[in-house]
Amino acid sequence: MHHYRTFHSFLTGVALCCTTVAMAQAARVPQFSSPEVKADNTVAFKLYAPAAKEVKLSAQFEKAAVPMTRDSAGVWSVTVGPVKPDMYPYNFVVDGMAVADPKNSAIFPNEGFQNSLVEITGSTPLVHTVQNVPHGTLAYRYYTSPELGTRPVVVYTPPGYEKEGSKKYPVLYLFHGTTDLEETWTKVGRANIILDNLIAQGKAVPMIIVMPYGRAYPKISKSSGSLRNWDNLQEIKKDFLDHMIPFVEQNYRVKADNNNRAVAGFSGGGGTSLFLGLNNPDLFRWVVGFAPGMLKEEFDRNNAVAFANPSLTNQRLKLFWIGVGKEDMLYPVIGDYLKVLDDKGIKHETFISEGGHTWMNCKLFLSTVAPKLFK
Amino acid sequence: MHHYRTFHSFLTGVALCCTTVAMAQAARVPQFSSPEVKADNTVAFKLYAPAAKEVKLSAQFEKAAVPMTRDSAGVWSVTVGPVKPDMYPYNFVVDGMAVADPKNSAIFPNEGFQNSLVEITGSTPLVHTVQNVPHGTLAYRYYTSPELGTRPVVVYTPPGYEKEGSKKYPVLYLFHGTTDLEETWTKVGRANIILDNLIAQGKAVPMIIVMPYGRAYPKISKSSGSLRNWDNLQEIKKDFLDHMIPFVEQNYRVKADNNNRAVAGFSGGGGTSLFLGLNNPDLFRWVVGFAPGMLKEEFDRNNAVAFANPSLTNQRLKLFWIGVGKEDMLYPVIGDYLKVLDDKGIKHETFISEGGHTWMNCKLFLSTVAPKLFK
Repeated sequence: MHHYRTFHSFLTGVALCCTTVAMAQAARVPQFSSPEVKADNTVAFKLYAPAAKEVKLSAQFEKAAVPMTRDSAGVWSVTVGPVKPDMYPYNFVVDGMAVADPKNSAIFPNEGFQNSLVEITGSTPLVHTVQNVPHGTLAYRYYTSPELGTRPVVVYTPPGYEKEGSKKYPVLYLFHGTTDLEETWTKVGRANIILDNLIAQGKAVPMIIVMPYGRAYPKISKSSGSLRNWDNLQEIKKDFLDHMIPFVEQNYRVKADNNNRAVAGFSGGGGTSLFLGLNNPDLFRWVVGFAPGMLKEEFDRNNAVAFANPSLTNQRLKLFWIGVGKEDMLYPVIGDYLKVLDDKGIKHETFISEGGHTWMNCKLFLSTVAPKLFK
Repeated sequence: MHHYRTFHSFLTGVALCCTTVAMAQAARVPQFSSPEVKADNTVAFKLYAPAAKEVKLSAQFEKAAVPMTRDSAGVWSVTVGPVKPDMYPYNFVVDGMAVADPKNSAIFPNEGFQNSLVEITGSTPLVHTVQNVPHGTLAYRYYTSPELGTRPVVVYTPPGYEKEGSKKYPVLYLFHGTTDLEETWTKVGRANIILDNLIAQGKAVPMIIVMPYGRAYPKISKSSGSLRNWDNLQEIKKDFLDHMIPFVEQNYRVKADNNNRAVAGFSGGGGTSLFLGLNNPDLFRWVVGFAPGMLKEEFDRNNAVAFANPSLTNQRLKLFWIGVGKEDMLYPVIGDYLKVLDDKGIKHETFISEGGHTWMNCKLFLSTVAPKLFK
């Protein structure tokens, strides 16, 4: 038995792996691509799982998992659609085990599950489609907190930022959902591409977007539940006020006042954004929740400053915006929350979409609210 | 059957998924973490695969795949080591199907396979360990090529770059291996962290590192074999000279001369770096290959300019450096190549390490050669 494949077959093989195990496998595995998006917006998915008894496609454009069919080589496949153009998470369920698509390098950054991403572009570019317009820069940075150590953050600066030596910009702080990472708002939410396109169309003000990591790890463990949990909120608030905002304002040309500071977030991170935004009027006059995570018994505690003086709150906030999908499991509790806001006379805008607790809705929410900010 | 779990259990559950399918699964799946690195450098790996007949751990610190054991809940596990401190790729082989670790958000960016990453830090920080030193910035950018469209590139600028308004820097162009992506040199190779640490220690000159996407997609398909294939080299050369270098030199404060321009690459991308470096002496005086991909019958063609006049080549090059591991499958052909260089009298430095065609070696090679550059 040869430990190494020959040099030529190695270098020309598609699976450039490094261990002898992986290389031996590569010799046997049938070659194919997945996913394949066709011109008619149907999509073919394939997975090599020779010993599996049942494989299903679990995709967020389908209401239920779709059975896949095995060929004689052990490759399971299914073609679905036409699918409405968008970018969707999906995975395969192999005899009850959920796995990402090994053939697809577009991966949903997450600490709790692994999904792949499929983009159906369609004939007209969408607001999150990469287009030939001026592009901003995504910076992967670290900042240091004595409490939490070296922390990652992703910062979007708009097109032209580097060349405009003195121009200052407003800042949107944008929190991901529970189990997501600081990359999720760009890799799944396309926040950078959405802003590139909106700025190119003159619809949004050029702004900086700061995307922190929303869990106060290692103080709050990675398996500790929602980001809107009280203990996490306290740690994140401290980190945010003492380290994150100072890091941003020392390292970027920002307009450092509450007229030019917005906070938004999705799901558990929407709980964070409302908590930070509504209790710190000196910091934020723009507060946004995308299907924000909240519990009814926490409304009063988490909104204490805003609820204490509704008319002052209305004077302070330039925009208080909440988006949620009708099929979102949080729609009922968010409905209760909106009713409380109405009862108290706290002004807010709502945007009720179709669909559920998804990143397709996040892209829609961000592209809807971004044109309203800092105007 | 309930389509949605209750609100409270949803928000506090660790698997904040969005589809009813995933949510129903989450209710049944046992909770655990993977991998878990222990204080004694042993590592526990776990995978939920209730219907699998055989699950193995395929990790690059083991010579062969290690069988895992199933518990009554369907969770397979194994504890291995102590493992020599480093960061290693691994995956699970489930009845012949290779999958990444669904519990681990550290993923090896690759178009050909999916591996996870496990970091064993040990008691002393390694050269690629994130430490409390000044950190550079990683910028995810796009540039546009009429031939290849909107292309991604990752650019490392050293600590302090943003604050030093006029200082100019040398540039290292750094190519990934075949099937890797523009993120692989940072997420797997830790190029940014290695430079942060070497700069903090005064061992390396502060430099910019440009990490392009090395495949001329869509002209050259993603399944077209090694990056050092001739057709890919021609397209990448054109893109590199006409678009990549101009993009970098227009957008960053660089010393734009061949004394301050280096090119390096791993595997198929090492073939690219030698091809670009040795045939363009006006551009590069620092040429580096990390286990560079090459075929014996291509030596003359791919090195035409350097081979045409060895003494002139020796005058032009300040450093021609090649690193390779003794267990690398490319070691024999690289040995042949080094003999040709000796026969022709072309000066070069070699660095022969233990180990194979791995990113553990890439980190070692980069941290070894970076202190030699631009001095």
